[in-house]
Amino acid sequence: MKLLRVDMNQSQVRWEPVPPVYERLGGRALIARVLLEEVPPTCDALGPLNKLILAPGLLGGCSVTAAGRLSVGGKSPLTKGAKEANAGGTAGDVLGKLGIKAVILEGQAPKDQWLILRIHSDSAELLPAGNSRGLGTYATSDLLQEMYGASCTVISIGQAGEMCMGGAGICVTGEGRQRSNHAARGGLGAVMGSKGLKAIVVDKPTGKTPPFADADLFRGAARTFAQKLINDPKLGTKGSQHLYGTASIVAAVNEMGSFPTRNFSNGNFEGAETLRGEHLREVTLARGGEAGTRCMPGCVIACRNVYVDATGKPIVGTLQYETIALLGSNLGLGNLDEVAVLNRMCNDFGLDTIETGAALGVAIEAGQGQFGDFESIRRLLAHVGEGTVLGRIIGNGAVATGRVLGIRRVPAAVGQAMPGYDPRSLKGNGVTYATSPQGADHTAGNAFGARKEVNPLGIQGQKELSLRLQIIAAMLDSTGLCLFARPPIIANPQLMVDMINGRYGWGWTVEDYDRFNRDVLRTELEFNRRAGLTTADYRLPEFMHTEPLPPHNATFDVPDTDLDTVFETL
Amino acid sequence: MKLLRVDMNQSQVRWEPVPPVYERLGGRALIARVLLEEVPPTCDALGPLNKLILAPGLLGGCSVTAAGRLSVGGKSPLTKGAKEANAGGTAGDVLGKLGIKAVILEGQAPKDQWLILRIHSDSAELLPAGNSRGLGTYATSDLLQEMYGASCTVISIGQAGEMCMGGAGICVTGEGRQRSNHAARGGLGAVMGSKGLKAIVVDKPTGKTPPFADADLFRGAARTFAQKLINDPKLGTKGSQHLYGTASIVAAVNEMGSFPTRNFSNGNFEGAETLRGEHLREVTLARGGEAGTRCMPGCVIACRNVYVDATGKPIVGTLQYETIALLGSNLGLGNLDEVAVLNRMCNDFGLDTIETGAALGVAIEAGQGQFGDFESIRRLLAHVGEGTVLGRIIGNGAVATGRVLGIRRVPAAVGQAMPGYDPRSLKGNGVTYATSPQGADHTAGNAFGARKEVNPLGIQGQKELSLRLQIIAAMLDSTGLCLFARPPIIANPQLMVDMINGRYGWGWTVEDYDRFNRDVLRTELEFNRRAGLTTADYRLPEFMHTEPLPPHNATFDVPDTDLDTVFETL
Repeated sequence: MKLLRVDMNQSQVRWEPVPPVYERLGGRALIARVLLEEVPPTCDALGPLNKLILAPGLLGGCSVTAAGRLSVGGKSPLTKGAKEANAGGTAGDVLGKLGIKAVILEGQAPKDQWLILRIHSDSAELLPAGNSRGLGTYATSDLLQEMYGASCTVISIGQAGEMCMGGAGICVTGEGRQRSNHAARGGLGAVMGSKGLKAIVVDKPTGKTPPFADADLFRGAARTFAQKLINDPKLGTKGSQHLYGTASIVAAVNEMGSFPTRNFSNGNFEGAETLRGEHLREVTLARGGEAGTRCMPGCVIACRNVYVDATGKPIVGTLQYETIALLGSNLGLGNLDEVAVLNRMCNDFGLDTIETGAALGVAIEAGQGQFGDFESIRRLLAHVGEGTVLGRIIGNGAVATGRVLGIRRVPAAVGQAMPGYDPRSLKGNGVTYATSPQGADHTAGNAFGARKEVNPLGIQGQKELSLRLQIIAAMLDSTGLCLFARPPIIANPQLMVDMINGRYGWGWTVEDYDRFNRDVLRTELEFNRRAGLTTADYRLPEFMHTEPLPPHNATFDVPDTDLDTVFETL
Repeated sequence: MKLLRVDMNQSQVRWEPVPPVYERLGGRALIARVLLEEVPPTCDALGPLNKLILAPGLLGGCSVTAAGRLSVGGKSPLTKGAKEANAGGTAGDVLGKLGIKAVILEGQAPKDQWLILRIHSDSAELLPAGNSRGLGTYATSDLLQEMYGASCTVISIGQAGEMCMGGAGICVTGEGRQRSNHAARGGLGAVMGSKGLKAIVVDKPTGKTPPFADADLFRGAARTFAQKLINDPKLGTKGSQHLYGTASIVAAVNEMGSFPTRNFSNGNFEGAETLRGEHLREVTLARGGEAGTRCMPGCVIACRNVYVDATGKPIVGTLQYETIALLGSNLGLGNLDEVAVLNRMCNDFGLDTIETGAALGVAIEAGQGQFGDFESIRRLLAHVGEGTVLGRIIGNGAVATGRVLGIRRVPAAVGQAMPGYDPRSLKGNGVTYATSPQGADHTAGNAFGARKEVNPLGIQGQKELSLRLQIIAAMLDSTGLCLFARPPIIANPQLMVDMINGRYGWGWTVEDYDRFNRDVLRTELEFNRRAGLTTADYRLPEFMHTEPLPPHNATFDVPDTDLDTVFETL
């Protein structure tokens, strides 16, 4: 395998052998290590010293089902710490097949000189961004696939990333004309924009498969893994996650009183019924949209949808739970058509729907719009794409919006907006939001699935639960695996160990696997420590400790000492 | 002496005896200790757990010349650490005469309920703010002096403080109709606004003098101190600081290449000639304004001016160096009439001219105005008072402005904008900006006066110089002394020791005095540490390390290890 280093200062690309320190790493694990080795932790996240790292997981390119996610990382302009966000689409698979361990972008292009990185099978080059400058991610993807072939993968930023907004993510195309996969969180689109890179175009490799140390071992484990997913009652073809996608949990989260409503002022939304995944599927199919399709080649879960309007015209795909919560109930909207339009706008501008939904909620609380009034919200969001002063505030995320508009009720932790679970009534997620080196993030250790195991309203067992989930999340994000695909690996880690050994021949044991996962967190925590994050940062906002959340009237009361000792046993 | 505690939640006031831990403290020293004892260091600076503390210095009310400053403090919304800012006017003297060690404001008034605190000789009460709500500090002071008597002292916030903007300061009236004294820095006006307090009105005490432990010792020392000031060649009636005020240094700072110009992109301003203190005095006197008057009762230095327009009508008083630098050269303006108008607007809105000037410079760099174009800048500043979205950005200070508008060249340290000395060519100030627990602050340890002693362009001796100056600054801010009045105390600390012992009978030695001063810094550093500030925060912005500053083409190259060890010998 090899590294591709891109020097944006000098407009030069360079292929490098993988140094030993990175050899046994992938995805999030590799990003964390590159940050610690190469990036000054106190650097300006939008300055020349930060790096943007794109890395498939360890299983990238191996055609393991649900394991083709692309990790993108760098120092986050929001959390000021280590950040990794990952996306479906074809990028993880394609880079893995090309034997590219990581693309590392360094420096900054001269002001107003925008570039595109093109990666072929054995070469790479920087080209002028030309007409793609200023376009949204849909038009950028269209233009570049038109120029370079419909089969190539496009990784791009929209206007938000170009304007270096903290809420900007990175869009990754998928099979067919999919444009809706985003490495959304932590402002990595702004980091890409700060480098002067509009897009990366990767040619589809022909007939490439990575070498296998033990092909039989690999294939056996990969097949068992896929079969377990197919047989899983939630994930299989009759399972709720396949049928209704991530939105399958709307009713349950609402019922438990953790569904963010009107800027996290209620955990129960009166309009939740029409936001449910079941309703989403029904409407989608009745109108001729897609349900149960896939975002990554070969995924057997296939939880994706394409939401269409009443005339059958696609609005956005895939409409997901976090977006429904943050752009829906959190803004007082109970209409999926409206949520879908806002979702598409965010996707096009290249904005994280979670960060932006939270920022919109704060802006509305400041009087810039009205909860439940779609038109006022649509106008507000349109400002972001236009880059108006108000748009720049919202585009910079929830914390910046609260600070500028004078709102203290900002649902964020470690600088990053909270996803769709109010931590006052799902306290395990509160522990994760507060303590994860990634900031408030539902993929960093989501306790929702364990709500029957640990009382979500109690404080007992939350820190242990969060740690366990954070370790698993680190594994998922480092191998390229989707969050939905975790059950078979949790049930039998040997499956992952076998796939890794079959691919690389490292002779891992389950203990090695566990150490690897924990090391990801250790490395990120160390980077964050050097970047200046302390226990003062690893906290939830003050209002969540004092303002009771209906309907349970719960506050976040997990003691600080618990937060400070989550990683004691790491 | 006594404490006045004001519970804004319950609209209650309470007199308290001074607890032993606060007994031997005043001004900044007392504020630091109250913060450490009573305020959760990680609290939201604009939330109910922060406190706003107003405290005269240890010499407050004793009629010592140049020692009547009022310290105001709390956790800063800008630095997130301990903050003290002080102002001239009559407040320090009046509170001292009333025997009030400190006024401590706690909690927050219910939303939209604005109050005024009225302090009489022996009682205090909270009253509705009535018509003063929404007024600037000039109109607020006028209204309240009309209601409560022209002799009372008014301490108020303007629109910026009401809107909880991070650049908001607190205005203190002085003798006659003076309205131009501000405890400007660190966003303490926002803290006052967050409490729901529009103003404090203090009745003039009649015939009160504090008790003296040894009146002869006190009077002898105070008289010698005053005489030393009168005889000082710079401060006396023929001295440059009396004649030209703080603006006396314009030419020298410009000549050394440290005069902030067009958002800190040059250290030398081609239009500096007409910003000089000599020019200021000439114009002022020719038009019938004031020069060489005083901002505090009994001050023998009398460096104040009242700048008038061509018709002799007062624009603003006192026009000072830092304002001339930040609202003048830093915005490309070389016309004092224009600077004076911007200064008055800032004063009226209740804005720190340093923070706001720096924010305007950043906003102009982002294309929101034009350097040197007064009208575009005036319009930009007007937004702040109007509370528009753009105004809220600028009103929140330089860091917020840079973040939202996407500008990395932000002249700030520890979250607070730099005053009028570019640290690349006055490196001792760079060390102070970076390491002071107060953030970038010219009164926290200003190396300009030592420029002949330590080469301002070199790195040698800067950390030792900064520490020495920071210790002296802590003394000044804790006794109520003006920065200009430091020479006699530096030359002979026994003078201060005698005044303290004469007043309080504490039997201080010069060693006690030194320990007291150092303890101020230790206490603040400890609060900041608990608030989460680390060496990652105690730094200058990245661009100052890499972008050479004309005309010396100097970068800030004092090693991080020097910054990290400034307080090693504290």
